[in-house]
Amino acid sequence: MRFQFELQATDGAARTGTIRTPRGDIRTPAFMPVGTAGTVKAMMPDDVRATGADVILGNTYHLMLRPTAERIAALGGLHRFMNWDRPILTDSGGFQVMSLAALRKLSEEGVRFSSHIDGSKHMLTPERSMEIQRLLGSDIVMCFDECPALPADERIVAESMRLSMRWAQRSRDAFGDRPGHALFGIMQGGVSRDLRQESAEALIAIGFDGYAVGGLAVGEGQETMFDVLDYAPGFLPDDKPRYLMGVGKPDDIVGAVVRGIDMMDCVLPTRSGRTGQAWTRRGAVNLRNARHRDDPRPLDAECSCPACQGYSRAYLHHVVRAEEMIGSMLLTWHNLHYYQELMAGLRGAIAEGQLAAFVARFHDLRAEGDIEPL
Amino acid sequence: MRFQFELQATDGAARTGTIRTPRGDIRTPAFMPVGTAGTVKAMMPDDVRATGADVILGNTYHLMLRPTAERIAALGGLHRFMNWDRPILTDSGGFQVMSLAALRKLSEEGVRFSSHIDGSKHMLTPERSMEIQRLLGSDIVMCFDECPALPADERIVAESMRLSMRWAQRSRDAFGDRPGHALFGIMQGGVSRDLRQESAEALIAIGFDGYAVGGLAVGEGQETMFDVLDYAPGFLPDDKPRYLMGVGKPDDIVGAVVRGIDMMDCVLPTRSGRTGQAWTRRGAVNLRNARHRDDPRPLDAECSCPACQGYSRAYLHHVVRAEEMIGSMLLTWHNLHYYQELMAGLRGAIAEGQLAAFVARFHDLRAEGDIEPL
Repeated sequence: MRFQFELQATDGAARTGTIRTPRGDIRTPAFMPVGTAGTVKAMMPDDVRATGADVILGNTYHLMLRPTAERIAALGGLHRFMNWDRPILTDSGGFQVMSLAALRKLSEEGVRFSSHIDGSKHMLTPERSMEIQRLLGSDIVMCFDECPALPADERIVAESMRLSMRWAQRSRDAFGDRPGHALFGIMQGGVSRDLRQESAEALIAIGFDGYAVGGLAVGEGQETMFDVLDYAPGFLPDDKPRYLMGVGKPDDIVGAVVRGIDMMDCVLPTRSGRTGQAWTRRGAVNLRNARHRDDPRPLDAECSCPACQGYSRAYLHHVVRAEEMIGSMLLTWHNLHYYQELMAGLRGAIAEGQLAAFVARFHDLRAEGDIEPL
Repeated sequence: MRFQFELQATDGAARTGTIRTPRGDIRTPAFMPVGTAGTVKAMMPDDVRATGADVILGNTYHLMLRPTAERIAALGGLHRFMNWDRPILTDSGGFQVMSLAALRKLSEEGVRFSSHIDGSKHMLTPERSMEIQRLLGSDIVMCFDECPALPADERIVAESMRLSMRWAQRSRDAFGDRPGHALFGIMQGGVSRDLRQESAEALIAIGFDGYAVGGLAVGEGQETMFDVLDYAPGFLPDDKPRYLMGVGKPDDIVGAVVRGIDMMDCVLPTRSGRTGQAWTRRGAVNLRNARHRDDPRPLDAECSCPACQGYSRAYLHHVVRAEEMIGSMLLTWHNLHYYQELMAGLRGAIAEGQLAAFVARFHDLRAEGDIEPL
């Protein structure tokens, strides 16, 4: 079975469809929980699935350092290693090596760096990134790319984008033909419309199974990000999935979907869950706050996740303050549940041509704020 | 419905039976996972139940300090607070206040101390301990007692035991008549047969729903503990449950059951699970050890827990080394599963009069050691 994307409905620029892979379907727009080092932190894989996730993301940078891609391959691949049999998308390591590794040196060839774990020396190139992602058994492989933090000088953004486009060709060549596996190109170009268009044309000329909008959510702010998303997805083919990397907060996600994005990933729901922060239909709730100490009500009375079904805000406050693991477990579960419920709502609204009403209700509920004080 | 104990079979000194409570039956011999601060660490309550636990233990000392017994009572009691609707046994706070609190001062009245969390000042007395355990909604309440670490001078042990017996009477008086709830006395007396007998007689004269053997597992070693257990349970009534507090390793548990103990609790399976240590039919396995790094085999091929069914030793090693929460979650689950499986095996063997053969097989498997190197 080959990798396929079926577009089922559109509503304005927004789209809903299904990515078909040998490991299962991915309903779009899709949010992908991040499973950095072979685990979606604080969650059992069956429970991640139960929240509605069709696909998770694995990080090439983390896994190549520990336990290593070769070890995972010898153990049967990442799916078997981490007990997740549905699709996995892996990033290329390009973004993380530039943000996490020590002593990194960028060249035409690739990036030489030292591990942040043990200082060991490594080299990531387009060819090595493709090899690692193949060893992991990734279903959706990302091109090796590079991007500057924003704001950045346009000349630097242009040079960086053109390097990424040369790496995209090398990634394509190294990936080869792997039926059932997809390779996605990554558009760069910062906040420049011309550079975005140039990047999209370069990628389309090479030809990919899907296209990511890279280089956003790197410090430019939501307004600037939406400005880029007002035109950038339009440079990409309609019949391929469009993936916005590293996004985001619930309102970022809604804004991106409205602008034609099909896939997203972000550490936010999982990371927030480990710091006592919950995301709900009514906005963010910080469970560390003393106002929850005596509150017998659930985090969200209308939510069907285990945290909201079984526990009071007072309990969540207690376990967050006491640094009990169940605090991280429950809030991560809730956050992933909420994110997937939001995606399901967006998909349904697009299918019914009701996206504008859905988005209006989304903003209205948040404007009402969290529940009343007791 | 009143608290009842039905003895169903004996095999030598060992017994199997059922404690009936309004919140459900407790099959004995029973192992009680410890839920210190309103959570069995790293586990969801439904999963604790799924391992086979009929009852869990809550700690008066921790809960009185945070979130406070009054707050838990206002929120509907400990069962509702922590989402566990089956029986809960609470300790009296006596042992933990002497081992954890700061600036503690022991008197005939009770123990004055400062919280290890925020330095706030508190007083625990038999009366206050009964009040806290009532506020928590505990099903099995423990007398407020005091015990010295072993080895200790026999005169000190005797004085301490007699203080605990006076506190036992005050606990009994303060507990009153609470149908469906049980109060257990705690035998003290260190390693002195005479003091143990004196303590048992004092408790029986007061009259309790069950009797604990206290003051063991406090540094005396397994051999000494078993020496005491060779005679101490015999001083207690046959028709009431006997609870050995704070025990223990799997071979401690087997030895205690053989000697007539019906209930036990220990942080070991949960605490070990958070430090990479697993307990199996073949003994302890340290997953941090590099020998597991490339091992595709499960921790125990015959174990039906999620850790053994879904993951390799290599994965467990990886997540323990990377300090991922799922390492603690999986190993805690495995350890509790193994402990409950051991208890079920002991109960079945006693019921069939096959305990000696069961114990021999238990020791044989452990003597064979962990699985072969790859």
